[in-house]
Amino acid sequence: MELLKVDTIEAARDKLIQAMTEKHPEIIELNLLSAQGYIAARDHYSNEQVPDFRRSSVDGYAVISSDTAGANESLPVFMQIVDEVIMGNPAKKEIHTGECAYVPTGGMIPKGADAMVMVEYCEQFDRDQIAIYNAVPFGKNIVYEGEDIKKGDLVIKQGTKLCSKEIGVMACLGITKVQVYKPYKITIISTGDELISLEDKPSIGKVRDINSYSISAMAQNQGFDVLQTMVINDDEQALRKAVSDAIKVSDIVVISGGSSQGKKDATKKIIDELTGEGAFTHGLALKPGKPTILGYDNKENVLLVGLPGHPTAAILVFELLIIWLWKYITKQPEEKSVFAKITTNLAGAPGKTTCQLVKLIKNNMEYLAEPIYGKSGLITSLSSSEGYIIIEQNKEGLKKDEIVEVFYL
Amino acid sequence: MELLKVDTIEAARDKLIQAMTEKHPEIIELNLLSAQGYIAARDHYSNEQVPDFRRSSVDGYAVISSDTAGANESLPVFMQIVDEVIMGNPAKKEIHTGECAYVPTGGMIPKGADAMVMVEYCEQFDRDQIAIYNAVPFGKNIVYEGEDIKKGDLVIKQGTKLCSKEIGVMACLGITKVQVYKPYKITIISTGDELISLEDKPSIGKVRDINSYSISAMAQNQGFDVLQTMVINDDEQALRKAVSDAIKVSDIVVISGGSSQGKKDATKKIIDELTGEGAFTHGLALKPGKPTILGYDNKENVLLVGLPGHPTAAILVFELLIIWLWKYITKQPEEKSVFAKITTNLAGAPGKTTCQLVKLIKNNMEYLAEPIYGKSGLITSLSSSEGYIIIEQNKEGLKKDEIVEVFYL
Repeated sequence: MELLKVDTIEAARDKLIQAMTEKHPEIIELNLLSAQGYIAARDHYSNEQVPDFRRSSVDGYAVISSDTAGANESLPVFMQIVDEVIMGNPAKKEIHTGECAYVPTGGMIPKGADAMVMVEYCEQFDRDQIAIYNAVPFGKNIVYEGEDIKKGDLVIKQGTKLCSKEIGVMACLGITKVQVYKPYKITIISTGDELISLEDKPSIGKVRDINSYSISAMAQNQGFDVLQTMVINDDEQALRKAVSDAIKVSDIVVISGGSSQGKKDATKKIIDELTGEGAFTHGLALKPGKPTILGYDNKENVLLVGLPGHPTAAILVFELLIIWLWKYITKQPEEKSVFAKITTNLAGAPGKTTCQLVKLIKNNMEYLAEPIYGKSGLITSLSSSEGYIIIEQNKEGLKKDEIVEVFYL
Repeated sequence: MELLKVDTIEAARDKLIQAMTEKHPEIIELNLLSAQGYIAARDHYSNEQVPDFRRSSVDGYAVISSDTAGANESLPVFMQIVDEVIMGNPAKKEIHTGECAYVPTGGMIPKGADAMVMVEYCEQFDRDQIAIYNAVPFGKNIVYEGEDIKKGDLVIKQGTKLCSKEIGVMACLGITKVQVYKPYKITIISTGDELISLEDKPSIGKVRDINSYSISAMAQNQGFDVLQTMVINDDEQALRKAVSDAIKVSDIVVISGGSSQGKKDATKKIIDELTGEGAFTHGLALKPGKPTILGYDNKENVLLVGLPGHPTAAILVFELLIIWLWKYITKQPEEKSVFAKITTNLAGAPGKTTCQLVKLIKNNMEYLAEPIYGKSGLITSLSSSEGYIIIEQNKEGLKKDEIVEVFYL
């Protein structure tokens, strides 16, 4: 009963990290406009200060703030317009008491001025006379040199996913090329005599291949390069050939199905053979997800993963181990999650970590997590759920209304 | 002071929907393996039942459950092995009392049998004799016909984002082609004499163009087809030409900057001209985001959007109006959000909806939302935030420790 010698999730993760120590992910350089969704491969510090000049954050008039003291809607103060700052050009004239200059949003604040009055609070009388109906304090509507970004500031941390905000900051600093982690190249193989292709109508005893589709979608969602997906019958020879071929071009080869204790299971044998040292994980103390096999080919630097055949278990194990590994290695920050109230008591599984699918229900400024039951292997229990919760193996279970952390799937 | 005649977010959304009634998004057909991240354009019902035969969810022996009554670790019951079901093939022999048949995970349950005993609880003595150490109830480890999916079940709702779970369900049902909404084609134009390209070192008064990068990244993240991004000086002629050209090929043309009440602002004028009917929104009662202009070209069926020049305001308005519109039109379900405790009192803005950037902090099974302050236009206040909260215009403000809904940005 070899499958009972199983690893905890934590042990399997430790072994994965150890196996992958030699395999640093490659770093590639992308144009900033193409970097959306990639993971920054190094820290980025600013070489400049932003802004590099005192800038107005409104359309209006640059003034000496003390000149506006007491101004209000019924009692304006009057000022002399001495200049108009042209967008994208330096401000030329210095402002003295009683004087002001028009400055557009983003324009440079003239020397002498220390606040901006929004144009909405001004009324121009003639070419160079203006009434100001608003008293402004020192510094109002001005962004100072370096107030946004100082020279030497850490602006993008290694491991950050580059989205609109990060790409905006990099554009601001003139970073046109960005170094990102090259996503893994992955081959996904489904095995089983029962599997038929999607086009075929299943005859009795046969089912369509699900895992190569769902695992491929998960991999694509992380940006992985899915080299190939294929279905192989329970034919050890054919599977060995397919895995050997995939090893030559992939960073990760995933074989789903064929890893439980069935009579025809060749996955373990092939992973043992092809990795030299043999598989390092022969099962997980995880419900669902026990029939998981992990090995590492030191010669070709390829990770070999035997996933359970059950679609739900396959997705959960891929999420908890392989996507977890990618996030760990690329130094991505902790997962986004949601805290929710569990709607029912829930038993744990003795000696096993339980991964329970849940549906999230918004209810009066809080979320409820409703467990999705269903026998292992039901694809609909997966599709009707939004995320999962983890019940640690040393925990007996959860009580109704307990707060749980839900991770999106 | 025309900018004071502003629309609420709700009014602007209503006008957007009205303008777009004639412009149904196109529907395209994709191969299932390429559909990851797209939005389903119609409901999908099942034409089949899943599974189509009684299936085992474990490796083990199919038995008549009443035969196992009383079996336990010290007192097995003994049974005759009469068959081995081959994966992917029909089960041939019927099981009678005292008999059992080996069935692999996913294999067909023979007639007569009504439960499965996991192989871990069995010990084979000779070719056709087995000891069973576990009493199983009726139906144990069996998935019944149609238990997963019934004929006629709604399996994928219109508006669903197709990810691993949904693609898995479709694979299971043999759906190889899927109809999805064709994402918008968008052109993004930044305007302003102060803008220089990323490669240039800003001279005094100039800044690098941020918005075409950040808005492009947001659009890409929704799957939009970003046709072109460009920077145009404050030259009405050049801007009119660029927008006219873009209208011919785009679904949406975004012009950022040039929409506040500065002296050189041509965006409103050009949107008025090119839409025939004129812009329908001339400002938003939103902080930040007031200088927003919306118009619709009825002849070419193109939405014209003038975004604020401030990077934060531009991103927020694009999120609250354009991405909102895409999600509304493609019938996507409500946004994923997080409830969090606000860490400080927060004032609203009279007569305006406030969109406040926040950072999320995990704290003992709850999230705290910490407002990110900073003058409008600071790119770092954007990059250090994780999401935003909305303070409705009729709300005075928020009290410290009040629960708020945070939307990811």
